Amino acid sequence: MRALQPVRPVIDRPRSLDTIETPAVIVDLDRMERNLDAAGRYAAAHNLALRPHVKTHKAPVVAEAQLARGARGLTCATPFEAEVMSAVCDDILVAYPPIGAPRARRVASLPPRVRVTVALDSVHAVDEIAAAARAARRTVHVYVELDLGMHRVGVPGLADAVALAARVQAAQGLEFDGIAFYPGHVREPVMEQDSKLRVLGDALEHALARFDAAGMTPRVVSGGSTPTLWRTHELPGVTEFRPGTYVYNDRTTAAIGACTLDDCALTVLATVVSTAVPGQAVIDAGTKSLGREPVRGADGEGFGQLLEHPDVVVTRLSEEHGVLDLARSSWRPVVGERVRIVPNHVCIVVHLYDLVFGTRGDAVVSCWPVAARGRGPRAD
Amino acid sequence: MRALQPVRPVIDRPRSLDTIETPAVIVDLDRMERNLDAAGRYAAAHNLALRPHVKTHKAPVVAEAQLARGARGLTCATPFEAEVMSAVCDDILVAYPPIGAPRARRVASLPPRVRVTVALDSVHAVDEIAAAARAARRTVHVYVELDLGMHRVGVPGLADAVALAARVQAAQGLEFDGIAFYPGHVREPVMEQDSKLRVLGDALEHALARFDAAGMTPRVVSGGSTPTLWRTHELPGVTEFRPGTYVYNDRTTAAIGACTLDDCALTVLATVVSTAVPGQAVIDAGTKSLGREPVRGADGEGFGQLLEHPDVVVTRLSEEHGVLDLARSSWRPVVGERVRIVPNHVCIVVHLYDLVFGTRGDAVVSCWPVAARGRGPRAD
Repeated sequence: MRALQPVRPVIDRPRSLDTIETPAVIVDLDRMERNLDAAGRYAAAHNLALRPHVKTHKAPVVAEAQLARGARGLTCATPFEAEVMSAVCDDILVAYPPIGAPRARRVASLPPRVRVTVALDSVHAVDEIAAAARAARRTVHVYVELDLGMHRVGVPGLADAVALAARVQAAQGLEFDGIAFYPGHVREPVMEQDSKLRVLGDALEHALARFDAAGMTPRVVSGGSTPTLWRTHELPGVTEFRPGTYVYNDRTTAAIGACTLDDCALTVLATVVSTAVPGQAVIDAGTKSLGREPVRGADGEGFGQLLEHPDVVVTRLSEEHGVLDLARSSWRPVVGERVRIVPNHVCIVVHLYDLVFGTRGDAVVSCWPVAARGRGPRAD
Repeated sequence: MRALQPVRPVIDRPRSLDTIETPAVIVDLDRMERNLDAAGRYAAAHNLALRPHVKTHKAPVVAEAQLARGARGLTCATPFEAEVMSAVCDDILVAYPPIGAPRARRVASLPPRVRVTVALDSVHAVDEIAAAARAARRTVHVYVELDLGMHRVGVPGLADAVALAARVQAAQGLEFDGIAFYPGHVREPVMEQDSKLRVLGDALEHALARFDAAGMTPRVVSGGSTPTLWRTHELPGVTEFRPGTYVYNDRTTAAIGACTLDDCALTVLATVVSTAVPGQAVIDAGTKSLGREPVRGADGEGFGQLLEHPDVVVTRLSEEHGVLDLARSSWRPVVGERVRIVPNHVCIVVHLYDLVFGTRGDAVVSCWPVAARGRGPRAD
């Protein structure tokens, strides 16, 4: 597994950021730990099980920090994420429909000591993961996924959802643990979420009543995202939440008020490579370093914002070029100067890199691989 | 180097596409070779040097196919691309400002047998790459990059451009070879490019006259992109062109008429993982598999189009979910069914994967690594 291979470069003593080749991903470890602590405290205060989604960091070393700070287990999307994280965690939820024989097989082939749960929304998925569980001679736990307003995956009708849970209960190799939902449609600024959270809460109460009436009371009610993180306890019946972005945060999270800009732990370090065209500066971080993600749920132009010059945004992207709009700033960078960009959507950025550098103050003190990036050793 | 490591899975005999785990990138080898042949023939017919940009495929095996079909050298953007491609080519242009000591060092450290050229637009770049060239005891060839309308990088003023070329000529370790430009602002449908190409041609003629008058006639005039590929010969004085996308093509290239949909060699193979929400189907290819790239320069909704159902587009993306809009189609997929997506921008897609599968007809016959993905062994 790549996570266990040595990381190059080795950071054997603190080094200056100036020595790091750009573009690079930099994590302020103090900020990251503050973010983890805050979520851990929130979970404890409200008696919620914190099951962070690893898609944001894809790194066992960060997962260990989450587990050490109050997380009760991990959430993954891909089989490879689950495989990599099984090295550091024995309670893994694959919050993704286990469709396709290779995917179902990989999930069911996680180490036997790992308690594996999947979220699903179809008869096809139940039958496929049950077959894989039986072939692997293990029990796979199941959340039935409900669509409570996001309209992406999830069973919309409660009769169908209850019937699906019954099919899970009847399937050899599976165990019905509860229900899951993802409030990804609640992207408003935190203080404007009231009406959507009320609708969501009502739908959830209604769903729980139906499961109760059918004699299948969910042991777990799993929801939660970073935009709604601090209001998870307002949702009736929720026992578990699965934020991902909160570990690093990003410009979008700050824009909607779920964190401040000072809580953004991850930046992209880039170098100004050209100022030849007047009125702009070009950096060596483009779409292949930043992604082409908008700020969602709040205002925010461009594809990222400079940490040291928040009035400067990345206004245009090519694959390896980012154009800084200097119109609102008196700052005039020179070629060779370095900048740090707070990205709009941090999960997409991390997925583009093989390595992450950790800093304390201005010193680079650690380096770790994005071990679960990509799809991993293929089942085919 | 990763390119030289064995590729898993090994394709030792033709296999069905059905055996490939999704999401996956699939290249129709017949289409790819047809694309390479066409560009090679065009270059020969117009006596142009074809120097394909490897950013699109990042794979030595594809570069070898380009070199075998008429390419005279390769173009790279990153030091890692140049390092990987130096295994199969001894004439490499790094068409990117060589700014930052690590980047300049990596470029100057390519194997001595490789003829290395860089494109640059600043005094800073000249001085930095000259120092790196001298330290490596080699000659680095230089194109002075002009801004002929794209307004990204490139010297806009001709007096400055000529002065920069003189500084290159005077620098020990460097040799002035010519000028470069990138017509990335010409993105119209091919038949509507006339007025922009005329302006570009005029600017080019003017620039060449100024270099001639200064006694620094460029030996090479390097331009060209995929959107303008088939009209490169209309630009006065151009000796070399650097298309990248043409190897695979994509939905954007087809939309502007620089190819047909039948020339799109690369697709993303995905599985339908949910049809729970009415009116749509969800596939396992999201932003982390397709990128969030728009069609540019022509009409085209969504983030990709189905190969077998061109009236179906990927209308919404999450990180690992793509939502297919079924409104304009009578096709109703079932969970577990597979689809192939023609992506909007293929260069971004390839950069997200570690492996590519090659097909002849319906059979998977080869598999190669995206060897130059990421940033490679770091100089720090």
